[in-house]
Amino acid sequence: MNRNNSDGFETLSWTGAGDGFLTLLDQTRLPNEVTFVNCDSVEDVWQAIKRLAVRGAPAIGIAAAYGVVLGARDEKMLGSGDSPKTAEQGCRAALAACDHLATSRPTAVNLFWALDRMRGVIATVGEEPSAGRVAERLLAEAVAIHEADRAQCAAIGRYGADLLETLGPTMGIVTHCNTGMLATGGDGTALAVLFALNERGMQPHVYADETRPLLQGARLTAWELMERGVHVTLICDSMAAPLLRDGKAQAVIVGADRITARGDTANKIGTYGLAVQAKHHGVPFYVAAPTTTFDLSITSGDEIPIEQRAPEEITEAFGRRTAPEGVEVDNPAFDVTPAELITAIITERGVIEPVSEEAVRAMVDPESTQS
Amino acid sequence: MNRNNSDGFETLSWTGAGDGFLTLLDQTRLPNEVTFVNCDSVEDVWQAIKRLAVRGAPAIGIAAAYGVVLGARDEKMLGSGDSPKTAEQGCRAALAACDHLATSRPTAVNLFWALDRMRGVIATVGEEPSAGRVAERLLAEAVAIHEADRAQCAAIGRYGADLLETLGPTMGIVTHCNTGMLATGGDGTALAVLFALNERGMQPHVYADETRPLLQGARLTAWELMERGVHVTLICDSMAAPLLRDGKAQAVIVGADRITARGDTANKIGTYGLAVQAKHHGVPFYVAAPTTTFDLSITSGDEIPIEQRAPEEITEAFGRRTAPEGVEVDNPAFDVTPAELITAIITERGVIEPVSEEAVRAMVDPESTQS
Repeated sequence: MNRNNSDGFETLSWTGAGDGFLTLLDQTRLPNEVTFVNCDSVEDVWQAIKRLAVRGAPAIGIAAAYGVVLGARDEKMLGSGDSPKTAEQGCRAALAACDHLATSRPTAVNLFWALDRMRGVIATVGEEPSAGRVAERLLAEAVAIHEADRAQCAAIGRYGADLLETLGPTMGIVTHCNTGMLATGGDGTALAVLFALNERGMQPHVYADETRPLLQGARLTAWELMERGVHVTLICDSMAAPLLRDGKAQAVIVGADRITARGDTANKIGTYGLAVQAKHHGVPFYVAAPTTTFDLSITSGDEIPIEQRAPEEITEAFGRRTAPEGVEVDNPAFDVTPAELITAIITERGVIEPVSEEAVRAMVDPESTQS
Repeated sequence: MNRNNSDGFETLSWTGAGDGFLTLLDQTRLPNEVTFVNCDSVEDVWQAIKRLAVRGAPAIGIAAAYGVVLGARDEKMLGSGDSPKTAEQGCRAALAACDHLATSRPTAVNLFWALDRMRGVIATVGEEPSAGRVAERLLAEAVAIHEADRAQCAAIGRYGADLLETLGPTMGIVTHCNTGMLATGGDGTALAVLFALNERGMQPHVYADETRPLLQGARLTAWELMERGVHVTLICDSMAAPLLRDGKAQAVIVGADRITARGDTANKIGTYGLAVQAKHHGVPFYVAAPTTTFDLSITSGDEIPIEQRAPEEITEAFGRRTAPEGVEVDNPAFDVTPAELITAIITERGVIEPVSEEAVRAMVDPESTQS
């Protein structure tokens, strides 16, 4: 494996001040190559999100926040061909960057949440002396989002490990897609729980769904777990059901891309089926996500837009055509798991269990609940 | 697409008399190439079964039967380096071929059933004048097995179409793996039902699970259905659950590799999970298989040996490494669906519904039931 950074890796990092650039670990090249891409325009970030060089709901939000910093100095954002110079121009360009980045991927709500936070800062920095200063202020906010996510991951890990510890000293746990260091600014969401369990000496045995079509489980999750010394067995998505039946796995834990007010959860395609399997086999099904993944403006999971991706992800994902030319393909990137199939949702503020609209609102938006 | 045979294709065909050879459509090269492999030794057939150039429980049985014909003249089978000349030598070589072919794949029972039929013939041909005549007699039996399978497929298609017709004029049906012309000597098992429905003008809309790890659904089923003008949508295995929930599919139909006396069914990995999904969503789950797929010597599915295959099928199945080096992998080729999740089993003799040991024995072994 080629590794550019011998001290581990950073999924996202910013170099320099407001005139710096964003560096992303190119996740499309893992696990064969550890390579990085530098982004110094809004379009670079948009493309990186779209082609999944950076993915995972929290990481997408952080990348977009940094993308807005780049926007404040991006001449393409003003439409006039001029570089932003005044604060007004910087703000206008940054707002255009928000609008553009919002079109990159529709499902994960952290993207929209991060862009809203950046818009909130943009609304307050019109008095700055220059576009450069606007970029500095925006960078401070992006870094704050990044740092907060890191802390949230740690807290999710602690709460989740407290919950799963009760399963016993060694335990089989199924996970889906990638929800670790590569998906967040910190240790992850569902994987943070598994890392925390491992660090407490609980020796979880993780069964990682490969996660078709793009194999984030095989390429990313297996790799992260092996790097951190967690016992992992790679399986095809269809192999989880017999493992649950045979008692080899006693829990399922996944991340989330958007959670509604009543707890319906959009996550990587395959999550819903796994939740049905868990229910059928009497195994707890946990969702781990920061409160930034909740969208309290909607109640039903039916209201979450589901991204359809290109058929080639299924028909030729492995560099070789593996289906007939012209075959019709259905390729939703996500599905929705209804709250009734979710045992508990682990957030950085604590555990929501059982999952109900009242419990979700109390955890995510306590002020409105008290009023 | 390169096609050697412009009039369609034959999954298995024999050329010549007892001294002829077996030709197999090489299913590992589909759908990109339609190429054929000739087998003129027992080892050729063993390898073709092992590497899945020929696959599908009924087709494996037929290929093995032809392999025994080759065995009667295969000098490798006598251990002495001599070619079989006398009938006694031919029989001994053919029996050795039976033993060797039985080691190719453990789960599909049709293999053992076909070899038992060939052994039965071997026991009666010791008086023939030569090994060549033994081969002729064995060829007649192999051809009979092949022809019977073709007729069984047609009957399964009719019984199954009668059953599924009640679902309505257009219907969504999920299927898994490949159970068509490529898996049998005729039109298939589960796919024969879908072909028959289509020929009756029912316009089934088939959702074909791609079927990881080896993508028989994407490579073979989608191709067969398109060739025959059946509406097919290719999906990843994990995408069936939301389709069932949303009412886009109203039935599931699969084949079988071995069915026990009480109806527990071993089939391609992923079948059990699909049966759980069908149950959860209140959708009927059908198994289509000839009576040669039943193994009445065992009752519980736990007694069926499950083939474990190489980890590389998951980690680098399509010519590119898609998982970390050294990752632990679990790769069972089959799983077992318990009878209680199966709505009905469609055989060439009729439909077993509901599925019980009594009903299975009455259909598959009526003489013993009557005694």
